[in-house]
Amino acid sequence: MFNHLNILIIGGDERYLHVIKELASQKATLYLAGFDQLDFSDEHIIHTDLSSVAFEKLDAVILPVTGTTMEGKIKPTYANADIVLTKDMINTTSDSCVIYTGVANSHLEEITRNRDLTRIFVRDDVAIMNSIPTAEATLKLAIEHTDRTVHGANVCVTGFGRVGFTVARLFANVGAKVAVAVRNSTDMARIKELGMKPISINQIQSNAPETDIIINTIPHPVIDAQVVKQMNSSALIIDLASAPGGTDFASAEAHRIKTLHALGLPGKTAPATAGEIIAKTLVSLIKEQL
Amino acid sequence: MFNHLNILIIGGDERYLHVIKELASQKATLYLAGFDQLDFSDEHIIHTDLSSVAFEKLDAVILPVTGTTMEGKIKPTYANADIVLTKDMINTTSDSCVIYTGVANSHLEEITRNRDLTRIFVRDDVAIMNSIPTAEATLKLAIEHTDRTVHGANVCVTGFGRVGFTVARLFANVGAKVAVAVRNSTDMARIKELGMKPISINQIQSNAPETDIIINTIPHPVIDAQVVKQMNSSALIIDLASAPGGTDFASAEAHRIKTLHALGLPGKTAPATAGEIIAKTLVSLIKEQL
Repeated sequence: MFNHLNILIIGGDERYLHVIKELASQKATLYLAGFDQLDFSDEHIIHTDLSSVAFEKLDAVILPVTGTTMEGKIKPTYANADIVLTKDMINTTSDSCVIYTGVANSHLEEITRNRDLTRIFVRDDVAIMNSIPTAEATLKLAIEHTDRTVHGANVCVTGFGRVGFTVARLFANVGAKVAVAVRNSTDMARIKELGMKPISINQIQSNAPETDIIINTIPHPVIDAQVVKQMNSSALIIDLASAPGGTDFASAEAHRIKTLHALGLPGKTAPATAGEIIAKTLVSLIKEQL
Repeated sequence: MFNHLNILIIGGDERYLHVIKELASQKATLYLAGFDQLDFSDEHIIHTDLSSVAFEKLDAVILPVTGTTMEGKIKPTYANADIVLTKDMINTTSDSCVIYTGVANSHLEEITRNRDLTRIFVRDDVAIMNSIPTAEATLKLAIEHTDRTVHGANVCVTGFGRVGFTVARLFANVGAKVAVAVRNSTDMARIKELGMKPISINQIQSNAPETDIIINTIPHPVIDAQVVKQMNSSALIIDLASAPGGTDFASAEAHRIKTLHALGLPGKTAPATAGEIIAKTLVSLIKEQL
């Protein structure tokens, strides 16, 4: 039970309704900034704004999964005005206050320098759980944006990290012929064991003419002009790597190859599942850290 | 090679472009009614209208997959005006002329009574091949219309025919917990062998409170008011059975349960694959019959 804890939640989307519900059920006192449009009939949930918060009393501050902009701004889903988090606010908290976010840019790192900043999306367990809705959303896009079945299609997944693994297996499970492009022999062995075809990153280009769908998970230039040039004009590229992605989008456009740079998929297609993943993780981290 | 054959194709959608391409590659002489908006640079493909057709010379007439309306009408995708096929036209063909359609209503059966009417969608091979795009489109709908992942969801598929089999397996392959509701013990054994949970049709109701997604493939009232009453308001019903379907849609609406009566899925989400299935089937039937 968290009945001794004061937690400030700033902004956040539909997923954070699960976070609020879960933390409230643990009896934490929750201060919400950026949820003005919602009503919670719970005496432990208090609407506030950052000018009224007693930062010195806080045990934790929970930011949206995207953290803040480089100007410290947070755009709340359930309120109209942007919220600005400053270094002074963070410094007013006690030394033991923990700041939770999904990811962090250099500005957020800088303003929280004297506190424990926990990025939940870098955790392996969270990334693996999130890879399930990501892979399903990718499959949905593939079904939607091609005029053939995924069953029987030649699919090339680049990368075999937490997302690549799940995506490759899901597409193989629905009957696609899946090649996975990787660098190291351990990954190659595992891909083989799973019944898929391991290829080297260098082979993406020679494989391209027979590939119907390329799904990139590597945040480096992988689907470059050379690869694009070899692809069939009916092929589809789905890039899951964080901006700027791993695809030469200009080349793809010049060759009239359809590309989808698909980001933030769990929150879009499975907000309840994605919200529960974040809520469960926060509860177990707070139990551990506070 | 079909260079001795005169074939009339009346209407048809994107899928029929594959049919035309395939029959043209076999050198058949093709008369097209209802494709005015398209250009084919092939001397064996001749645009026509039914008032100009020499019906007595035809070896085959290919209708859209939906056949005709009860008034004999065909609404072409690639021309503006409706086309009306009459019993007189059919009777003008030679006795050996074969009429191909996907499905037939009583009007079409009546006007073609003196000819061989071949319904390709009742064929097992075609139904099984078509069940693949149907199942993928159903999965896409399930991902789209729920706020949770299909992975881990409790799915109940009713019926284990050609479509039910494919749908149940696809959902199990992506990580859903699948129960299949059937009547006979042979199906129950096969469902068990495939690693899914067989239940009796009578158990759909008692299973309903724990079911996240019901997918009906039975063209009889199965998801009735009693079943709907037991369902969670966040549940989803996808009915794949031909109109009027097997769901009490009024009851579902009264209980605010989302329903999708999803018909004609292969042509919608995978027209190229669906077109190739029809084209291949027609070629092999024409080889066999003419």
